[in-house]
Parts: sequence; C-alpha cells; structure tokens
Amino acid sequence: MKKQIEQKAAEIEKLIQEYLPKEEGYEKVIYEAMNYTMLAGGKRIRPMLMQETYRMFGGTSKVIEPFMAAIEMIHTYSLIHDDLPALDNDDYRRGRKTAHVVFGEDMAILAGDALLNYAFEVASRTFLEYPECSELGRAFMVLAKKPGVSGMIGGQVVDVALTGQEVSPEEMMYIYRCKTGALIEASMMIGAILAGADEEQVSLVEKVAANIGLAFQIQDDILDIVSDSQTLGKPVGSDAKNHKYTYATVYGITAAKAKVEELTREAVAILEKLPADNPFLPELLNYLVQREK
Amino acid sequence: MKKQIEQKAAEIEKLIQEYLPKEEGYEKVIYEAMNYTMLAGGKRIRPMLMQETYRMFGGTSKVIEPFMAAIEMIHTYSLIHDDLPALDNDDYRRGRKTAHVVFGEDMAILAGDALLNYAFEVASRTFLEYPECSELGRAFMVLAKKPGVSGMIGGQVVDVALTGQEVSPEEMMYIYRCKTGALIEASMMIGAILAGADEEQVSLVEKVAANIGLAFQIQDDILDIVSDSQTLGKPVGSDAKNHKYTYATVYGITAAKAKVEELTREAVAILEKLPADNPFLPELLNYLVQREK
Repeated sequence: MKKQIEQKAAEIEKLIQEYLPKEEGYEKVIYEAMNYTMLAGGKRIRPMLMQETYRMFGGTSKVIEPFMAAIEMIHTYSLIHDDLPALDNDDYRRGRKTAHVVFGEDMAILAGDALLNYAFEVASRTFLEYPECSELGRAFMVLAKKPGVSGMIGGQVVDVALTGQEVSPEEMMYIYRCKTGALIEASMMIGAILAGADEEQVSLVEKVAANIGLAFQIQDDILDIVSDSQTLGKPVGSDAKNHKYTYATVYGITAAKAKVEELTREAVAILEKLPADNPFLPELLNYLVQREK
Repeated sequence: MKKQIEQKAAEIEKLIQEYLPKEEGYEKVIYEAMNYTMLAGGKRIRPMLMQETYRMFGGTSKVIEPFMAAIEMIHTYSLIHDDLPALDNDDYRRGRKTAHVVFGEDMAILAGDALLNYAFEVASRTFLEYPECSELGRAFMVLAKKPGVSGMIGGQVVDVALTGQEVSPEEMMYIYRCKTGALIEASMMIGAILAGADEEQVSLVEKVAANIGLAFQIQDDILDIVSDSQTLGKPVGSDAKNHKYTYATVYGITAAKAKVEELTREAVAILEKLPADNPFLPELLNYLVQREK
C-alpha cells in the first residue's frame, strides 16, 4: 500500500511541476519563491484524494489536473503565510528553510498571495481548454469557498485568535473542521463534481472528507504525543509544551484513537454505499489516518 | 462632472456593502478586519470603470455587481498587504489607521488573504445565480489573471525588488503597467466581456485601460511634485525624498503632463471608434487622469 501511494505521489509530483510558472522575466524572484515552496516535498494528499475521487465517479479527462495543481498551490500558500514571523514564526519546515528565511518576509508575503491567486488562474484556464465540461462553475465555487473565511482561513483565524487561551470543545472542532478539513473536503468534492456526481453524492463525499479531515488532524495530535522526533521528522511533544489544547491532550490518547477509528469507519461506510467504486480510495483513507508520521 | 461621479461612487459604495460578509461566528474578527479596510473610503474607480464599460456595450443585468465587488476586494487586499511592516510599513492610509495597526500584523495578513479569496468566492456564485450568462468563464479568467504574477503582483514584486536601486525606463513602465494598470484593465475588460463584447473589442478595451492606468499613475507622480499635502490628503514630495524613480522625476513635469495627455487622447480615440457608446465613459477617463488629488 505504502509503495502504491508513493508511486502515485511521484506521478502527482510530476504533474504539479508542469503547472508551475517558468522562472523568467523582471518578476523572476516571485516564481523562484513560489516554486521553492511548492517543491519542498509535501505528501500531495489533497491532489491525490481529488484524483482518486474523480476516478471513483468514472472521471477520465485531464480537466482534473489543473484543479489538482490548484489545491496544492492553495495548501502551499497557507503554509508560507502560517510560517511568517507574525504568525507561527517557523524558520524550518520539513528540514528546509521556510520561504521568508530564504526570500525575505516581503517576498514570502507576496509569494503566498501569488500562489493563492495563481491557483485560480491555473484552474480558470479550463474554461477555455475544456468548454465541453459543464461542471466547471460548480467546481470553481467549491475551490473558492472552502479555502476562504468560512473554511480554511476561518479555522486559521480562530486558531490564531485563541492562542494561549482555553479552547472549548466546540471551538476546537471548529478549528479542526476548517483549518484541516476544508481543503480535504474541497479536494474530494471537486473530484466528484468534475466526474459528474449529482448534488446528493457530492454532499455525501463532503461528509466522508469532513470525517477524514478530522481523523487526520486527531492522528496528528496523537503522533505529537506517542511518536519520536526521528520518525516524525519534527520535534514531538510541542503541543503539550505550548499548552496547546488538542483532542489528544484534552480527551486522552485512548479516546483520541477510538475517535479516529470511528470517524474513519463511518467515512468508509458512506463511501461503500455510493453507486461508484474505487477500491484504492478506502485503503488510502485508512492509510492516511493510521499513518505513523 | 465631479458631482455625477460622486453620486455614482455613492451608489457603488452601497452595492459593495451588500457583498461584504456579516460580522458573526467564531471567526468574527476576520470579517471586522476585512470590512474595516473595505469601508475606508476609496474612490471606487475600478468598479465604476467596470460598470460604465459594461453599460457601454449594452449590459443591463445585475451579473456585473459581484464582479464589481470582487475587483474592489482585490484592490483592497493589495493595500492591506502593501501597508504591512515587511512591505511599505504604513501606519496610516487616508487618515485612518491601517489594518495591521488596528488588528495586529497576523490578522492583517489573514484579512488580506481572506479578501483575495473572498473576491473569487463572491464572483463564483454567479455560476449558480446566472446560469444563462455564457461569458462567466471568460470573465473569471481575466479576474484571476490580471491581479496575479503576470499582472498586479508581478508589478509589486519588481517595485519591491528594485527599491533603492536605479530603475530603467523599461522596468518603470513594467511596474506602472502591472501594479496600477492590471486591475484597471481587468475592470474594463470584465465589463466588456460580461456585456457580450467580442474578442477584438475586448482587446481594444484592454488597450484603452492600459493607457488610462499608465496616465493615472503618471498623474499620481505629477501630483506628488506639484500638489500640496492639504489637497492631496497625504505628504507630498515623498517620491523625491525617497529617491524614487518616477516618470515625473525622471522625465520632468512637462514631459509627464504631455504623456498623460497623449495616453488619454489615444484611449478616448480608441473608445470612440468602438461600435458602442457611453458618453459618460470618456468624460470619466479624462476626469481620472486630470484629477488634482
């Protein structure tokens, strides 16, 4: 399974590179900053979920590709801005210097802006290239809504606003659902939409993705407690050290593990009831939430 | 003329307010930060140009309204991020404290991100609300391209990268064309596209807008030299003080004024050859580039 996922990730890596801007022109430095962070070696989970959901509903066209690149650009811009001194102030990510350390804070802010904007630019070209695809408008609505104030940015805002304060269970769930969940929802929903899934099906896919997003984040909390920094590739125990309220620190490891299992089981059950099939997808979901790093 | 423009600006002000997010929910503070800056009293030039170009080509639907709000959101996000400490470090704009002073640097970064993203979210709702409009995809492509790396952000990047350095005439024109011109081009092009103008017409409108954007920026340079701070509402002579290369400081006032006139005359001549009419539009263009503040 791990090998299969790694092979798919390598294919997606190649695909994403095709959608990156050329490093040329007076504004060359911004392309360098964008590409530096895009090529910093993420797991490419979001485009992979998008592609597998697209395949599940019978999608075969290349129209999905610019949307796969776009969702990864949006994810990457959020990392660049999160890492800024005014936010998390992280100088390293996955062992590599962050964008503001390499290119300066001004260029990192602009590179984040540029990637968010470029995501829509790349995806919008499908209107010209795939005029026969009647679902582009619906896909665009999801691509624009989920990363925004009622989705990812909203979660980030509440997370930042409540830093150092006691967080209620509702607030915690809000942050998890938005900050981590929204882009996973967008990924799977766009896959379903572009393959022609109807509204009810898309809504079920949204529920699957919401569960997986939540389970993924709780697993992250668990790993912060039980893993070692060598396996994880980053310091462990940072949530406890920062007095951060997480599902695992508030409810305990056992309850957290049970929740991950429950959310995943529910997600896979919904998937299996859908009149569409992709045997790889439930396996991928299980792999994602049971990962050890 | 001035009164007519003020009246139209007041109508646009009201329209924009309808598209702003409600200040509620856990993430309320981000809506406050977005709306604070959106309502800081701009001239609303971009939505006005969009609307008048739309009318010129016979457009009458409300489909233009979300795009008018969207272009102003994109303009506003660029101001929030420009004012940040890592960029221009401005604490005041139009006599009001800037977003990062009021809401903190972290929320200002997120509010800028949120407005850029929200522009696409608001505009994307037209796919649901105006399914009969077959030009939405083309409008979206322009909305996504012009503010991006080959447009506004590109201009901003080169401006930042060359700060304090000698700038060649070509680099200066690049910055002007992108940083100021790109959103004006987007505004007029989207107006034309949504009203059903054909590709040749849209390309002529782009040329008109490019001239006006350039003339507008050169007039800005001229005012920085010849106006007084009372009229302008901001310090004058700042370009010379900051050793900033502008068209007016490099070529002199007389040449700059001649250039503004030439660009505007050419723009109006192109407009008048188009098989469409809106007598207000050439007047508006003349007013914009001859303004005294």
